[in-house]
Amino acid sequence: MPCLVMKFGGTSVADLDRIQRAAERIKHEIAQGYQIIVIVSAMSGKTNELVKWVKETSALYDDLEYDAVVSSGENVTAGLMALTLHKMKVSARSWQGWQVPVRTTDTHTNARIEEIPRENLDRAFSEGMQVAVISGFQGISSKARITTLGRGGSDTTAVAFAAAFKAERCDIFTDVDGVYTTDPRIAGSARKLNKIAFEEMLELASLGAKVLQTRSVELAMRYNVRLRVLSSFEETSDRGGTLVCAEEEIMESNVVAGVAYSRDEAKMTLISVADRPGIAAAIFGPLSKSGVNVDMIVQNISEDGRTDMTFSCPTDQVLRAEKSLQTAKDSGAINYHNLVADETVAKVSVVGIGMRSHAGVAATMFEALHGEGINIKVITTSEIKISVLIDRKYLELAVQTLHDAFELEKAG
Amino acid sequence: MPCLVMKFGGTSVADLDRIQRAAERIKHEIAQGYQIIVIVSAMSGKTNELVKWVKETSALYDDLEYDAVVSSGENVTAGLMALTLHKMKVSARSWQGWQVPVRTTDTHTNARIEEIPRENLDRAFSEGMQVAVISGFQGISSKARITTLGRGGSDTTAVAFAAAFKAERCDIFTDVDGVYTTDPRIAGSARKLNKIAFEEMLELASLGAKVLQTRSVELAMRYNVRLRVLSSFEETSDRGGTLVCAEEEIMESNVVAGVAYSRDEAKMTLISVADRPGIAAAIFGPLSKSGVNVDMIVQNISEDGRTDMTFSCPTDQVLRAEKSLQTAKDSGAINYHNLVADETVAKVSVVGIGMRSHAGVAATMFEALHGEGINIKVITTSEIKISVLIDRKYLELAVQTLHDAFELEKAG
Repeated sequence: MPCLVMKFGGTSVADLDRIQRAAERIKHEIAQGYQIIVIVSAMSGKTNELVKWVKETSALYDDLEYDAVVSSGENVTAGLMALTLHKMKVSARSWQGWQVPVRTTDTHTNARIEEIPRENLDRAFSEGMQVAVISGFQGISSKARITTLGRGGSDTTAVAFAAAFKAERCDIFTDVDGVYTTDPRIAGSARKLNKIAFEEMLELASLGAKVLQTRSVELAMRYNVRLRVLSSFEETSDRGGTLVCAEEEIMESNVVAGVAYSRDEAKMTLISVADRPGIAAAIFGPLSKSGVNVDMIVQNISEDGRTDMTFSCPTDQVLRAEKSLQTAKDSGAINYHNLVADETVAKVSVVGIGMRSHAGVAATMFEALHGEGINIKVITTSEIKISVLIDRKYLELAVQTLHDAFELEKAG
Repeated sequence: MPCLVMKFGGTSVADLDRIQRAAERIKHEIAQGYQIIVIVSAMSGKTNELVKWVKETSALYDDLEYDAVVSSGENVTAGLMALTLHKMKVSARSWQGWQVPVRTTDTHTNARIEEIPRENLDRAFSEGMQVAVISGFQGISSKARITTLGRGGSDTTAVAFAAAFKAERCDIFTDVDGVYTTDPRIAGSARKLNKIAFEEMLELASLGAKVLQTRSVELAMRYNVRLRVLSSFEETSDRGGTLVCAEEEIMESNVVAGVAYSRDEAKMTLISVADRPGIAAAIFGPLSKSGVNVDMIVQNISEDGRTDMTFSCPTDQVLRAEKSLQTAKDSGAINYHNLVADETVAKVSVVGIGMRSHAGVAATMFEALHGEGINIKVITTSEIKISVLIDRKYLELAVQTLHDAFELEKAG
């Protein structure tokens, strides 16, 4: 029997009515002859509430207990979804991460799935279960502690199950009807893409487009999982949404596929660092170990054996970064004069596989921003994207300007 | 190192401030040289919210999924409590039921603890853990599904851990400062008892006094666990609260120790049941199997081979009882004319070990109720208690009247 994975995000299961509507979609797919694995998120707002409690309890919280608390929201939805399916005469049961089990690394709050053994679910399917409802976002470590996969981790759960059970398709139901050229709340002319390449989706996701978690796209690309993003608020349609697929499948193609942004960035500058071989490793090694996700890095030209080192990270990791750097300084591992954190910046990026064969994208981008008087603070580039750090107050203007500059409202 | 079990109910962990206050009490006991096992309930209101969602989803819900949903509240508190203790430099970790593991029967929504293996906690204690924070109310079945222990089940969790770890004391922190002669919200003259016998507490608990779960008292009696009920809202005092203990320890003693009540009772009457040997088993067997907690039973005198059978159960089990009886009727196992459910009754009881040696308690009770014009619908008695079913609208009046009639405001 072919397997289908269906993932419902927080807004798709926000209350009992929406869970009911999601259950109807599931029942529709059962009628098409699928064995179904459903991945659910916490009801919208629940995870945020739990995270808030953890952070209010302790700014420097223990990651293991964070996971134990924050993982509970998904379990509630999974049980309610199973109950709703029972009411509709569907044989279903809920599965918490440890029950499957979803085996992960021990990196709490940001664990990676290592293995999903099929035995338990396969046995239940063979005993008549039609739908397995899985708590997304969670797993267990080698020490049998609960882990979570990081924000949006339910997408990764969905793709991992789709890979493990060789699902025909992995449908991600969310509150948007697909992947857009940019956030429609910021640029009214944003256009829905029918298809997007794995590589582009990967960049957009990692650059702040909230529609899919980066790792879920990576995983889908590696295992060639057909990933469809679609709205849970529209009528069932087998042609709706955006298909994330291999580059070859895409006929229409703009040079730039989309504009992404990330609002809550911080720019950290280490002033007057003693410059010596290995200094970057001495700075960024400890940051990585303490769980700071360093994004952009810029090193100024060295003068008199000292240099300034700038990097960006999410604003909620600033405290952690400062603590880590101070520890490294106290131990003598690094030496710097001062650490300046600018928490008023944002990142804007343009992404497109067309950039590989088209010159001038960077120039167009910088001119457009300059034309609006927006100062660029840091630049990084890759083969298919260009990112800049700017003052947060210009974020919306920058997104609109770039969307217009690359004429993204028109299909390629 | 002596072990102490401390259990904090829902109002004692209702928000982060109260969790903080509870953590301070824990720290105080660590300083007295104890190894601590803390049992936590869900933050107040949380379990009710979860139960409401389950019942709104489906009136005839699956007990296994009910447990999966409803058990999640305790896990949140356990993690937050561990985080709070960390902040106070106490080495603590949270333990969900399956992690200990707390092994229970497979009777979902009302499971019994069968075994608490000590290995995992003992290892953690030997590795430096000072406090084990346990999610109360939950365990796992032989099939590795999550079970819950029924309302107030965290008390049972606490006593079971106290027995397994041979704790010196089991302190139950709640929103009342001890056990009262009756509910002070109903009778202003209600008096706090310094001590109460296990047997009396058992009757009061099973009759609706909400301060301790029946099974927790049973368990405490069987394993001779010193159980103390005290308020989490008063200053720490080693002499506060009410001690639940063996009868011999109690000097003061009234004939009646207290008046208990249960508001949400239903009276079900099977009209014109074909009377034959084994008919009671044919009726109450299926009810028990479908999880209906039948309390009082009255059978009328048989006439022409038919009789009326009356029983009481909690109002929220009426639907289940009706379904079970209809099924038994359809299958031909029983035969009755009609089933009448009266959901407007309540139960009032007087309890006291003094009854064993004092005659006239029943007469005093019935006269007092008659004096207020309160009609008695059903009566049951045991060695140390008398219970009556009355119209729910007279509940408060009946409790006040009985409290006065037995002069419970005066210490014996």
